[in-house]
Amino acid sequence: MKILIDVMSGDNAPEALLRGAADAARAFSPAIAVIGDRAVIETVSGEAGIDLSGLEVCDAPSVISMEDPALSVVREKRDSSMAMGLEMLSRGEGDAFVSAGNTGALVAGATLIVRKIKGVRRAAIGAVLPFSSPLLLLDSGANLELVPSDYLQLAGLGSVYAEKILGKKSPRVGLLNNGAEKTKGGANLQEAYRLLSEGEGIDFVGNVEARDLPFGVCDVIVTDGFTGNAVLKLTEGLGSFLFSKLSDTMTADLAARLSAAVLKPKLKALKKEFSASEYGGAPLIGISMPVIKAHGSSDARAIYNAVRQAIGIVSSGVIPEMARIAARPAPGGEKQ
Amino acid sequence: MKILIDVMSGDNAPEALLRGAADAARAFSPAIAVIGDRAVIETVSGEAGIDLSGLEVCDAPSVISMEDPALSVVREKRDSSMAMGLEMLSRGEGDAFVSAGNTGALVAGATLIVRKIKGVRRAAIGAVLPFSSPLLLLDSGANLELVPSDYLQLAGLGSVYAEKILGKKSPRVGLLNNGAEKTKGGANLQEAYRLLSEGEGIDFVGNVEARDLPFGVCDVIVTDGFTGNAVLKLTEGLGSFLFSKLSDTMTADLAARLSAAVLKPKLKALKKEFSASEYGGAPLIGISMPVIKAHGSSDARAIYNAVRQAIGIVSSGVIPEMARIAARPAPGGEKQ
Repeated sequence: MKILIDVMSGDNAPEALLRGAADAARAFSPAIAVIGDRAVIETVSGEAGIDLSGLEVCDAPSVISMEDPALSVVREKRDSSMAMGLEMLSRGEGDAFVSAGNTGALVAGATLIVRKIKGVRRAAIGAVLPFSSPLLLLDSGANLELVPSDYLQLAGLGSVYAEKILGKKSPRVGLLNNGAEKTKGGANLQEAYRLLSEGEGIDFVGNVEARDLPFGVCDVIVTDGFTGNAVLKLTEGLGSFLFSKLSDTMTADLAARLSAAVLKPKLKALKKEFSASEYGGAPLIGISMPVIKAHGSSDARAIYNAVRQAIGIVSSGVIPEMARIAARPAPGGEKQ
Repeated sequence: MKILIDVMSGDNAPEALLRGAADAARAFSPAIAVIGDRAVIETVSGEAGIDLSGLEVCDAPSVISMEDPALSVVREKRDSSMAMGLEMLSRGEGDAFVSAGNTGALVAGATLIVRKIKGVRRAAIGAVLPFSSPLLLLDSGANLELVPSDYLQLAGLGSVYAEKILGKKSPRVGLLNNGAEKTKGGANLQEAYRLLSEGEGIDFVGNVEARDLPFGVCDVIVTDGFTGNAVLKLTEGLGSFLFSKLSDTMTADLAARLSAAVLKPKLKALKKEFSASEYGGAPLIGISMPVIKAHGSSDARAIYNAVRQAIGIVSSGVIPEMARIAARPAPGGEKQ
């Protein structure tokens, strides 16, 4: 097994990504290849004291920036670390690919270079939210809109992921909606509700309101990528906001600071538990090989966790199982 | 001035609502009328020791439940506390109406009985989120979808509310989107971005991602009611989730409990600060008279605060100012 890592993308590239890759190479048995500008990789590693000996270095002269258009990955930047990593994956020169780069480019590149699983209409981003019980949020940003059958397909693929990777037995699937009744939402969501209710092998718990998401009412929540993106980013923003308010509270005066000192390790553990990077990155669900979107702000630990997650995806046989689900005939016949 | 309160709707009706109304009657000078089943009001007040002497009681035999269809307010339940309160408001027998009941019915009833401000296409719900600086979220649930000119209209009306009620000078308006670049979102949001950029009297700060909402980057955020509802409810759910995790942390062992005792008043204050009920309820923006949707789980304090907010809306002249904005010719001419 070989895990490919784009070390040139993300806010902390390349140093933190190289450090995460080197840590993973020491901890795990599969081979790891880092993709990026060889001269930069060698200079930065030398200066930062990162041991490259366990890593294969693949030279890629350019980088896709956050501002580049999504399709640059298959056009003017075919020689970028992201495009070259996806090419290697598609040629079988690696078993999984991790990148902290431009999300749009990664989804476009994975779809066009690595290709979707046969029968999948749209690949989606599957972020895992750090609630009481980890929650797979699908789609968390690849597609602004979905058609009703997409919700059903994502529910099927997401259930496989939740079972094999998150360790949930018969994962419960919810449809994000603005109320619990089945008449909530527009015609699109009402039809999605109907398809999910009748979906083979789907343990559908019905509509779920955003208020209930943190409390473990389902293991997979399906929604369009616009709403999913808002949910993902608000979870992140509100988490930092509340932890920063808490920190202000605890340093307000001497008595507070003394008491806070006792609680500090526990609060640090709570903050860590509420950090999405503990689950690695967001898998691109519906792509025929494992591609993981690490957070743009990934540090070495997040990359290390993304590698661990990639190894889990490769070993678990989750993608062949998704392919089996996607090959089923679509339900509803002429209604599709 | 007279404030009308539907005391029969909401999870804690009628007791908590009566108590909030009685507290408000003692604290504020305007008259307060409570609307509901007179026999129930008298029995409950008697048993709970609530002094009704400062309140006018208006008898309404029925109640709209959370399960009733929105249009029941103008059909089979014209004799409900909500419908009768809206009728009184429309006839000038009150200056503002507060209800903790069925949101769909309240929006429909306000639109059909009280009527919209002339020139307003759609009334919206304007929740105030309890961030560093209060943030007006428009639409937080009345309309699943908006057309581009709606975003501009909500931005104008929301700016008036943020200035006159939340005390913001030249309120900054953001468009909720899945990235900061102006090319983000579908055609609808890109056109909304263009209209907002050119909007007269709008201090438009551009696209805002959900991650940044808690940090005071804008005073008004405009979005469709489906996404807005998810943002509102997730804010609420995540707040309770994190405070409950925090409470578990602080009672984990004796040392934690001792330290937590010192911090308790500060944490309680933080929790209160992060409670939306401190801002009262959500005003229905675009209705020609003040209508306030209090949270379904409103306690006496939330109702008291909603009355204070209603008085503020009546005194401030915010609705005549909104009417002035809505009467302006729509921009873009044939593009509308």
